[in-house]
Amino acid sequence: MQLDQLCMQLAIDKAWEFQLLTYPNPAVGAVITHHGRIVAIEAHQKAGTSHAEVLALLSAYENISGEQIGFDRFDAQMAHDFLLRLPSHFFRYCTIYVTLEPCNHRGKTPSCASLLSVLKPKRVVVAQVDPIDAHSGGIDRLRISGVVVETGVKRVLAQHLIEPFLIWQKRAFVLFKLAQTSNGRIGGGYLSSKASLMHVHRLREACDRMVIGGNTVRVDRPTLDCRLTGGKAPDITIYTREDTFDRNIPLFGVGGREVSIGNDLEYLCKPSFVLVEGGEGMLNAFSEQTDWYLFYQTPKLSAHNLTYNIDKDLTFLHSGTKGIDMMIWSKAKNE
Amino acid sequence: MQLDQLCMQLAIDKAWEFQLLTYPNPAVGAVITHHGRIVAIEAHQKAGTSHAEVLALLSAYENISGEQIGFDRFDAQMAHDFLLRLPSHFFRYCTIYVTLEPCNHRGKTPSCASLLSVLKPKRVVVAQVDPIDAHSGGIDRLRISGVVVETGVKRVLAQHLIEPFLIWQKRAFVLFKLAQTSNGRIGGGYLSSKASLMHVHRLREACDRMVIGGNTVRVDRPTLDCRLTGGKAPDITIYTREDTFDRNIPLFGVGGREVSIGNDLEYLCKPSFVLVEGGEGMLNAFSEQTDWYLFYQTPKLSAHNLTYNIDKDLTFLHSGTKGIDMMIWSKAKNE
Repeated sequence: MQLDQLCMQLAIDKAWEFQLLTYPNPAVGAVITHHGRIVAIEAHQKAGTSHAEVLALLSAYENISGEQIGFDRFDAQMAHDFLLRLPSHFFRYCTIYVTLEPCNHRGKTPSCASLLSVLKPKRVVVAQVDPIDAHSGGIDRLRISGVVVETGVKRVLAQHLIEPFLIWQKRAFVLFKLAQTSNGRIGGGYLSSKASLMHVHRLREACDRMVIGGNTVRVDRPTLDCRLTGGKAPDITIYTREDTFDRNIPLFGVGGREVSIGNDLEYLCKPSFVLVEGGEGMLNAFSEQTDWYLFYQTPKLSAHNLTYNIDKDLTFLHSGTKGIDMMIWSKAKNE
Repeated sequence: MQLDQLCMQLAIDKAWEFQLLTYPNPAVGAVITHHGRIVAIEAHQKAGTSHAEVLALLSAYENISGEQIGFDRFDAQMAHDFLLRLPSHFFRYCTIYVTLEPCNHRGKTPSCASLLSVLKPKRVVVAQVDPIDAHSGGIDRLRISGVVVETGVKRVLAQHLIEPFLIWQKRAFVLFKLAQTSNGRIGGGYLSSKASLMHVHRLREACDRMVIGGNTVRVDRPTLDCRLTGGKAPDITIYTREDTFDRNIPLFGVGGREVSIGNDLEYLCKPSFVLVEGGEGMLNAFSEQTDWYLFYQTPKLSAHNLTYNIDKDLTFLHSGTKGIDMMIWSKAKNE
């Protein structure tokens, strides 16, 4: 039983709960121990709000002091100000585990490395050094301020976490989303639990563009909005050779959205997050372009004949649950 | 962040790693904290060897003292003797989380409740009270000896863990094992990783009887032994209407095994653990009789046409990994 390994695994698992929802930020998780006792397990949830370390420090404060904080914990500036006003050495018996090097630049939120260099926890354990030059330097800053920093615990697993982030620095990160039964059937009406559908809507809200096949649009006449989460509906590209769409199909009527039609994939060159939904046709069309697959797997065996025939080796990255469903993150195996 | 909830979840997850391999014992996990710091995560691994609490106490001892124990930790009698010779109150700052009430009877191993009532940890947290009258009373014994006991933390999840155990008290517990791609294809040669195959062989070793379809025997000419684990090959029932099998098929040549042939299901009335392997035919034949399904899901999409068409609602119980594969435990949803 290695406490460092356990805590980092808990931080990684927590970060996966918000994978891609933090776009354009990376998914990051943090765990804090106080005298070896786990007092916080948190993750960054949404760009522009408090980072994982900050949320974990607030939880740790509540847990150690027994006091509830009285402000919006997702307001990074307020959170930093609050933490900096605590008695000095409040976190002196704490170890902070974080899946990615604490940021060293002031972006939408103040720098976490700067915060930690003042709070001076006993130890900071980092899984993965920040690969973006402009952001790195956090570990150096901590060490200069006298904080003990260790790196490399569960590094490979932490690398998977930030792979989308690295890709969307250079070009579009493409996620193919598929809802299926446990035996790979994709027909028969809504397959997923309400919790899975909510998650799909949150992904739609986070992405820059949704791509969907022309056949699905003609047959299903979908809306493709984010009504379950109340967010802005994504721009849509209908992947098709010919524009023969009835403009009364609901997706065209959703306000504030652009709809483009065609089979040009030029937009994939642009750094962005692209969400693809569809069946066998779209799986084949985007076979080379898809970075990750997300399966919402329903606890059901089905005799429905709609499935997809495609040969592709994958690697499982992570699995979790959404309501009664499983959510399985996979990537194309291209090694 | 509730430490009790977290520790019990870790105990439950650990127990799942040995689910059914402990037959005829239940799957049980245990976690120990020392001053709130997690110092042991263990599970019962095999009937006749040390229980989860005992393995966890040994790990906790090693972690707290920094000393390695010098005997076989799976020898329950040695482990109990060793623990009872430790300085009194060695575990006084420890909380012990266990998924099932510590046993109160002396079976193949000494009673855990008796051991804990002497060791006197600070607190024992139990997820699920022992439902077998002859085994229960452990909590009462602990309380009488002055140990604080709490119950009910993650009780429902802990109930799932022992469901097979409750079933095989009365009749056969039937596990249907299926190896498939991520899109439900079951053809195309060995689908599973070495680690999954090893696990299958361990299940074969643990079960009382393996049932397989006549067609599989005729076409695949399997051996169905436990060569990867070196254990005794299970007795086999070939489920078929007519005995027209070539006795040169390897499974008939495995020593120390009984092979029966027919479609009588009388043996399911007997308290036991029955492992069924097969495809669509067997899924249908055992649709009413199957308690749980275990899917070994390979990270691969396949265009192979062999799949299975069956309508059945399931509930996911747990998922884990075996090498590159996922292992998904499900039960028939019969509510």
